Amino acid sequence: MGNEEKFFPGLDGVIAAETKISFLDTELGEIVIHGYDLIDLSKTKSYLDIVHLLLEGALPNHDEKNTVEKRLKKEYEVPNGVLQVFKMLPEQTHPMDGLRTGISVLAGYDSQVEDRTFEINKQRAYQLLGKVPNIVANSYRTLKQKPTVQPMSELSYSANFLYMITEKVPSELEEQIFDQSLVLYSEHEMPNSTFTARVIASTQSDMYGALTGAVASLKGSLHGGANEAVMYMLQEAKTVERFESLLEKKLAQKEKIMGFGHRVYMKKMDPRALIMKKALKQLCENAGDDLLYQMCEAGEKIMEREKGIYPNLDYYAAPVYWMLGIPIQLYTPIFFSARTVGLCAHVIEQHENNRLFRPRVHYIGERHVYSG
Amino acid sequence: MGNEEKFFPGLDGVIAAETKISFLDTELGEIVIHGYDLIDLSKTKSYLDIVHLLLEGALPNHDEKNTVEKRLKKEYEVPNGVLQVFKMLPEQTHPMDGLRTGISVLAGYDSQVEDRTFEINKQRAYQLLGKVPNIVANSYRTLKQKPTVQPMSELSYSANFLYMITEKVPSELEEQIFDQSLVLYSEHEMPNSTFTARVIASTQSDMYGALTGAVASLKGSLHGGANEAVMYMLQEAKTVERFESLLEKKLAQKEKIMGFGHRVYMKKMDPRALIMKKALKQLCENAGDDLLYQMCEAGEKIMEREKGIYPNLDYYAAPVYWMLGIPIQLYTPIFFSARTVGLCAHVIEQHENNRLFRPRVHYIGERHVYSG
Repeated sequence: MGNEEKFFPGLDGVIAAETKISFLDTELGEIVIHGYDLIDLSKTKSYLDIVHLLLEGALPNHDEKNTVEKRLKKEYEVPNGVLQVFKMLPEQTHPMDGLRTGISVLAGYDSQVEDRTFEINKQRAYQLLGKVPNIVANSYRTLKQKPTVQPMSELSYSANFLYMITEKVPSELEEQIFDQSLVLYSEHEMPNSTFTARVIASTQSDMYGALTGAVASLKGSLHGGANEAVMYMLQEAKTVERFESLLEKKLAQKEKIMGFGHRVYMKKMDPRALIMKKALKQLCENAGDDLLYQMCEAGEKIMEREKGIYPNLDYYAAPVYWMLGIPIQLYTPIFFSARTVGLCAHVIEQHENNRLFRPRVHYIGERHVYSG
Repeated sequence: MGNEEKFFPGLDGVIAAETKISFLDTELGEIVIHGYDLIDLSKTKSYLDIVHLLLEGALPNHDEKNTVEKRLKKEYEVPNGVLQVFKMLPEQTHPMDGLRTGISVLAGYDSQVEDRTFEINKQRAYQLLGKVPNIVANSYRTLKQKPTVQPMSELSYSANFLYMITEKVPSELEEQIFDQSLVLYSEHEMPNSTFTARVIASTQSDMYGALTGAVASLKGSLHGGANEAVMYMLQEAKTVERFESLLEKKLAQKEKIMGFGHRVYMKKMDPRALIMKKALKQLCENAGDDLLYQMCEAGEKIMEREKGIYPNLDYYAAPVYWMLGIPIQLYTPIFFSARTVGLCAHVIEQHENNRLFRPRVHYIGERHVYSG
């Protein structure tokens, strides 16, 4: 083993890619997306703006934004064969596994699947963005023995997505907050799922394969699964006091508490969490019931005091999704759906300037002489 | 960005994991698997020995080997629902995508899917090893409009796998060579697909997800897809002379030629290729037709002379699989099937001593001030 080779557990501190897409500027406290701060964008721009920014490299003007919307709406339908596969899945299938299967099956409908050129890859990204909300909603519905739901193309992208999940046309406030959550989840440098997608794409494998791997990655409790874990804690506790004692019990038992801390932000609060905290406040005020907000604030204080760690996006996205009437098991699939645009952008970038990922290992096992 | 952070394109030279499973000792020229050289093992040990070595950490005695065989045979059947899903896939589906979907669907049949403890993970590995050959054979057959084939439990593991692919009970020589190819493909340190599986598993995601990502990775032409690419070249050329001119034309056009070179071995021949070269010679002699052997040798000489690079395993595994009557589109799925044991061992090791993979990026895009 060469002397220059060094072990980086978890690749902590290793730069694995050059990118024009995004990075977490911890010094300036910005989530840079094609040069803009995601937090700024989330205050005035919609998910469709971010789609254009991530796939075309610039914010859209009015016409360009309309074009994106039309393009996605044309892709809302999912082949019937994909919907039929959902009916074959065992009832106990995890919704993320249903989503993974849906994307895996969809690859077979792409007659250009082996074409990874820039324009085809971009077209494929728009197709996936149009279809993933449908796959998320209908894989879940089918697993829950409910009839499939048809997209409503007269609704905005986000309103339709929320409608397909809740079977209820959302209010303006609900639509706006759900859209904002999609913006916040859209892209975030190189988390495990994005890294997975780029690693897979680097063999010259295709976008569906890269996304299938990313779903699998995001399912893990140390990644996207965290937003669901947060909501189960809140649901179990039911009151501020009981939530406080639940957290204290977990801390005493040295259990990992989901929704707090982030390897990159470390000792600062995830700025996306603040935006969702405000959204939660709005939704609670609107509903005339601020219990969830009070619980979350109390939990935030305990974790700051006891561990010096702060909420990440998942901590506040979870109660927001609860207030929007979204089933808990769909929180991670929705995270994936929102991130689809970021993942596709990274796959495209990887294919445009590729180098196969192939690290080494440090062997700590035995050596035998075998005389078989 | 911290000064210590360094960009490693393709993670070349980065040690991404500590492992007791395997490593490529380029100094001693050994593929170390739990302390033994894979090349030595491939000369006297069978795939079932390697399964025991990789999952239990030691070569089996006679009884232990029988136990492995019984354990795998009990798992040969695949749930009917999985076979039914294959019928729903569009005919043009890539066999690797069919395999990926099959493993993805299988997750729904595991009632302990969220349990990642050591014993359950190991049990799951045996289950997958029993079922993957069936999934490989029947996903492919269904896509080709052929009826599904039932496993023959009276055959050895490798003979049954080959039988399910070719519908012909193999001769002793065919069985032995196919088994040897599975041994050679079983484990190989940290190629992209194994890395993908560990990256996914590091979020605490499950073995099915990790394997789904690994299928996607292996599909790429820079990875497992290479063995198929080799055979298409041989098939296109048909004679020694035409194969020589095909390679020379590709070299002149600076096209990448699959089946040669390896990032880790660099300027040496992949020792696994030598074993398959001998197997090819045996099969050619047995068939009384050494055309493929002559073609491959001629190609080897050209690449050594012109580029100073040597065959890797895929270069000689491809014509061996051709001589065994295996459809070309199954070469990569078979590679995956053989590698399943190595992948499962890595997922288990990752879950036992986990650190989330989360590298950083070097941002080379613009910065804007946004005043929206």
